[in-house]
Amino acid sequence: MTYTASVVGGSGFTGGELLRILDGHPEFEIAQATSRSKENKTVGHSHPNLRHLDLRFTSPEDLESVDVLFAGTPHGVSMEHVDAFQDAADTVVDLSADFRLDSEEQYDEWYDGHTRPELLAESEYALPELNRENLPGADLIASGGCNATATIMGLLPLFEHDILSGDEQIVVDVKVGSSEGGAGGGEASSHPERSGVVRPYAPTGHRHEAEIEQFLGVDVSFTVHAVDMIRGAAATCHIFPDGPVSKGDMWGAYRGSYEDEPFVRMASGGGGVYRYPEPKAVAGTNFAEVGFEVDAANRRLVVFSAIDNMMKGSAGQAVHAANVALGLEETAGLDFTGFHPVGAP
Amino acid sequence: MTYTASVVGGSGFTGGELLRILDGHPEFEIAQATSRSKENKTVGHSHPNLRHLDLRFTSPEDLESVDVLFAGTPHGVSMEHVDAFQDAADTVVDLSADFRLDSEEQYDEWYDGHTRPELLAESEYALPELNRENLPGADLIASGGCNATATIMGLLPLFEHDILSGDEQIVVDVKVGSSEGGAGGGEASSHPERSGVVRPYAPTGHRHEAEIEQFLGVDVSFTVHAVDMIRGAAATCHIFPDGPVSKGDMWGAYRGSYEDEPFVRMASGGGGVYRYPEPKAVAGTNFAEVGFEVDAANRRLVVFSAIDNMMKGSAGQAVHAANVALGLEETAGLDFTGFHPVGAP
Amino acid sequence: MTYTASVVGGSGFTGGELLRILDGHPEFEIAQATSRSKENKTVGHSHPNLRHLDLRFTSPEDLESVDVLFAGTPHGVSMEHVDAFQDAADTVVDLSADFRLDSEEQYDEWYDGHTRPELLAESEYALPELNRENLPGADLIASGGCNATATIMGLLPLFEHDILSGDEQIVVDVKVGSSEGGAGGGEASSHPERSGVVRPYAPTGHRHEAEIEQFLGVDVSFTVHAVDMIRGAAATCHIFPDGPVSKGDMWGAYRGSYEDEPFVRMASGGGGVYRYPEPKAVAGTNFAEVGFEVDAANRRLVVFSAIDNMMKGSAGQAVHAANVALGLEETAGLDFTGFHPVGAP
Amino acid sequence: MTYTASVVGGSGFTGGELLRILDGHPEFEIAQATSRSKENKTVGHSHPNLRHLDLRFTSPEDLESVDVLFAGTPHGVSMEHVDAFQDAADTVVDLSADFRLDSEEQYDEWYDGHTRPELLAESEYALPELNRENLPGADLIASGGCNATATIMGLLPLFEHDILSGDEQIVVDVKVGSSEGGAGGGEASSHPERSGVVRPYAPTGHRHEAEIEQFLGVDVSFTVHAVDMIRGAAATCHIFPDGPVSKGDMWGAYRGSYEDEPFVRMASGGGGVYRYPEPKAVAGTNFAEVGFEVDAANRRLVVFSAIDNMMKGSAGQAVHAANVALGLEETAGLDFTGFHPVGAP
Repeated sequence: MTYTASVVGGSGFTGGELLRILDGHPEFEIAQATSRSKENKTVGHSHPNLRHLDLRFTSPEDLESVDVLFAGTPHGVSMEHVDAFQDAADTVVDLSADFRLDSEEQYDEWYDGHTRPELLAESEYALPELNRENLPGADLIASGGCNATATIMGLLPLFEHDILSGDEQIVVDVKVGSSEGGAGGGEASSHPERSGVVRPYAPTGHRHEAEIEQFLGVDVSFTVHAVDMIRGAAATCHIFPDGPVSKGDMWGAYRGSYEDEPFVRMASGGGGVYRYPEPKAVAGTNFAEVGFEVDAANRRLVVFSAIDNMMKGSAGQAVHAANVALGLEETAGLDFTGFHPVGAP
Repeated sequence: MTYTASVVGGSGFTGGELLRILDGHPEFEIAQATSRSKENKTVGHSHPNLRHLDLRFTSPEDLESVDVLFAGTPHGVSMEHVDAFQDAADTVVDLSADFRLDSEEQYDEWYDGHTRPELLAESEYALPELNRENLPGADLIASGGCNATATIMGLLPLFEHDILSGDEQIVVDVKVGSSEGGAGGGEASSHPERSGVVRPYAPTGHRHEAEIEQFLGVDVSFTVHAVDMIRGAAATCHIFPDGPVSKGDMWGAYRGSYEDEPFVRMASGGGGVYRYPEPKAVAGTNFAEVGFEVDAANRRLVVFSAIDNMMKGSAGQAVHAANVALGLEETAGLDFTGFHPVGAP
Repeated sequence: MTYTASVVGGSGFTGGELLRILDGHPEFEIAQATSRSKENKTVGHSHPNLRHLDLRFTSPEDLESVDVLFAGTPHGVSMEHVDAFQDAADTVVDLSADFRLDSEEQYDEWYDGHTRPELLAESEYALPELNRENLPGADLIASGGCNATATIMGLLPLFEHDILSGDEQIVVDVKVGSSEGGAGGGEASSHPERSGVVRPYAPTGHRHEAEIEQFLGVDVSFTVHAVDMIRGAAATCHIFPDGPVSKGDMWGAYRGSYEDEPFVRMASGGGGVYRYPEPKAVAGTNFAEVGFEVDAANRRLVVFSAIDNMMKGSAGQAVHAANVALGLEETAGLDFTGFHPVGAP
Repeated sequence: MTYTASVVGGSGFTGGELLRILDGHPEFEIAQATSRSKENKTVGHSHPNLRHLDLRFTSPEDLESVDVLFAGTPHGVSMEHVDAFQDAADTVVDLSADFRLDSEEQYDEWYDGHTRPELLAESEYALPELNRENLPGADLIASGGCNATATIMGLLPLFEHDILSGDEQIVVDVKVGSSEGGAGGGEASSHPERSGVVRPYAPTGHRHEAEIEQFLGVDVSFTVHAVDMIRGAAATCHIFPDGPVSKGDMWGAYRGSYEDEPFVRMASGGGGVYRYPEPKAVAGTNFAEVGFEVDAANRRLVVFSAIDNMMKGSAGQAVHAANVALGLEETAGLDFTGFHPVGAP
């Protein structure tokens, strides 16, 4: 093991996934996991899958010096503590929304006032498929939002290959699992109320639109539904291009963008039960699945993408970016392929 | 009890719901329930909720004379047996797709050849909110498709009140439960494969588009996803109107169309956990819930509608239409209000 | 409608079920629904299935005079307010554990100190199958615990017909849904943590043992597991009788006790998918299902029973008892038969 | 990579798990995956988590020579083909019930006639915690039944440490997921019928009793319930020992048997949400979790154990045994620790 790592905010869901990944990562050693509310408790107390680990949460006030610090803290907390994070580690990877956007103007449009706006231009967006070239040596990395990541993974090839220009009408209808709400949760996320739902929870104005706009240069009509799964974000993009687009054009774009990507799988109308992207197929993994159909009758493209919101949409993306930043094998620690069948992923 | 009724195809899911409704209906008496595969077995053998009924399936070859015959048989079967059905009953209510469309041309565009095309013009579409005035005295009634019903219930007021003309871009993103596939099912609907899914099962070209086009005069971009529930169809309509539409315009349209409808509830951004239409809120009932938001930033209307596909989307709609056809109280036999909380509906 | 009724604690799960039942009850009119936390809000705000009702919660401080008051308040609250309840209503039906046991000694063994112990001997246990003869005219009725009800319904015939004497070894292994925890809930009942569980939540010493002991005169080895459903309590009783017991003996006992009971269905090894009692088969209804097998090889009887914990195990039992107390038709307001298929019940 | 391996019956659920494990195993290389029904299709066609693998099913008629052959074929198939399996491989690990029992007499008591009874005495039971010393060099290994494995893991320390002798009354109440039924499945395992169940599917006489009796020398009263999860078998053992047993005795036994076992975790009444063994906590992993409570009032021991039926209860146990047989690191290929939260596991 070459690098030491800490996880700040280790008792939350994304903190637990960071610990799970780092525990199995050949190049990282976990130096510290902090949790204000679970100080001195074992990590297994919060994360039963890690019951066998001999590791206890420590206070976030006493950060050890490490190579990489991963922050799984809620939105708004990272910007308050970023100096301490950067004092403790050469590389800071933040999983909150605090450093995803490029400017204070963008931030203020979607969130409340930023206390460290000068860092916005400096930080790098984690998603390697979008921003790989800027990650090596980065010292502040912002892991993307899960719904934004699912959407960007679905749409990126169409922009990279000029099938879309940014003026098109695009509806993004997203379905997400309950882990997006984090551990704890209130009445709406209690099991009796949250089970079996198809619940419009962000009909309009979801904040992840900001990331999509920033990186793809397009305004999308975004609506998010809660459905009965724990993990997973599935985006269905309904796109109305200016002119005709063939299946061959589509395959060309997606293959062109993704054929060498280690964490992208195409699933587009093959046989069997799983013909298109599904959160079930990527549960627990860092894969994004992408697929599409051309609806000639309605001059529409339908693009499906699916990720595990805790992995490709959060902790997995963060470690992937750290791997790139440090020059490690990109897939190190992220080679779990998932299992089948799996229930609500 | 004034009227006798039979259920042909009584061992299927919609057959079971017909039997459940008719058993509790103050004006109907069940004369016969047929099932080719379950002949001589009790109805409780197929439908455990009806274990207390002293009723056995009989052969569909020997139909008794009744006032109303409900056919819960698969697509294509009703058109083969419609003469026998009409010989046995003055009023035939068919739950399949066989008699929903108005002309052979429409039928052939979406299904395979119709053997009794002359009946297409004669039959009446069951949905009372759309076709109430033509139901009294009708002798062949076609209960609507579940996904079409959910969509039509969501869009109808916008057409009735001239907010839409039919030229607009409309994306309909539907989420449905596993009961749509009927009893039995194959590998894709086995519990290990079907649990926890967000699965695109009809990316484009779903047949229910035909009904929507026929009744609303608009082509919609229709995509259906399977999600983890048993019952329920939830339609999210993303609409791009030609000019600005205010929330007041929307409330005017929906109140205008629905305020006197006994089976429509508005749910549009109120407080609490259930702010918009949800299949959970209508499980087991004949209610449709409808709600909306105006997305001014994207010049979009977002309309949500939710039904129980077995009830408002099938058996409940059928009995509602029969009530209207016979001049009974519209809500007779359909006054179950559902229960809360309920799991995957 | 002949009788007026109020529901105190109307915004909780059992309160919602009481309102649902009373709204459809031919002999009751809802006079008042109280909720301290939801005062002035519509009942639909808490219970989406009742969105169509024009009824708002009022303060529990101002109780109207009614014929029957149903209290859906938490354990310990009813004993504090029982005077106000009895001032307001001739008949009080309490759904908490406060008045289920007969003596202060029993109460203190399982709960903390009772503030009105003199009422324990006076109150009547609601379960009509056990206590029908004492209900007419009762002025304080205690609806049974859900797990106790499931167990008593399973074992009662064996005691009534002297197959068991009370000295036998009996293991009761119970599986329950998440609604037992009530609305709100903490981390353990959040959707991500509670979904898909088989979780031992009361390995030993569950308080409902007290009711079973009181009414059947037997000590049972009781263990409760949380499983992934919302409603439902299923008890599997593993019984080791002193001598051989035949299937005929068993059928004799169960038929003897239950053949005239309107809310008991036997399900014992017939054909089809649903061969034994299942919570799914009784979801939303007041039915208890009971069935058994004789395990000759191990000299064991296996008895299965299933109820909807919110209905037969709480609100339904309460209304059933009120019907008996007032001399109404026993099934009045409770004739909903459930629907099939249903998801996690 | 040192060893070549094939998977016969690769398109079934256990076949898919074998392929998933072997693909990530540092010492094995997959030479061949066979499937009669899916010949020439990619493994990803059956197992979407393996979509990225460049591997197609071949006919089971043409077996390549390999070091280890894993057979994921149904009961009865392995005994027909065992000569071909043994011709192809030095070590055969069979996941069916064909070679688990020691004698033809035992086999005939629980199954239908064995065609190769002479192999019963020769084959080794795979469970290393029970049979580690006999595995090195074994050429025919039988992976245990999932429900038997869960039960044996729970009870074994009590027999190894003489807390039980085999004469005690033991009730084993098991809860299992739907993957036990395998891919495909009929009406009872369709999603609408199987979701949300607590369904007694083997009230008495389950065949896995045979393995428990063979290895522990005790007759248990065994009952299996289907519950709403995909993976997982949870056994609750209710034990009535002859004399008093303290918590200290219990801890001594379990620590004595398991403290050095790499795939056993104790979970016995600690804090947090997950206090006892749960299938959720071990989903996708080869861990068994074990815990207990002493019910002094009823002179009962309650032992909980939980495994993933596809892993510790099948494919994981098989690879673990192969690792031992070949002298490899026991945990090789089996170091996935699971993730949290996970839905229906």
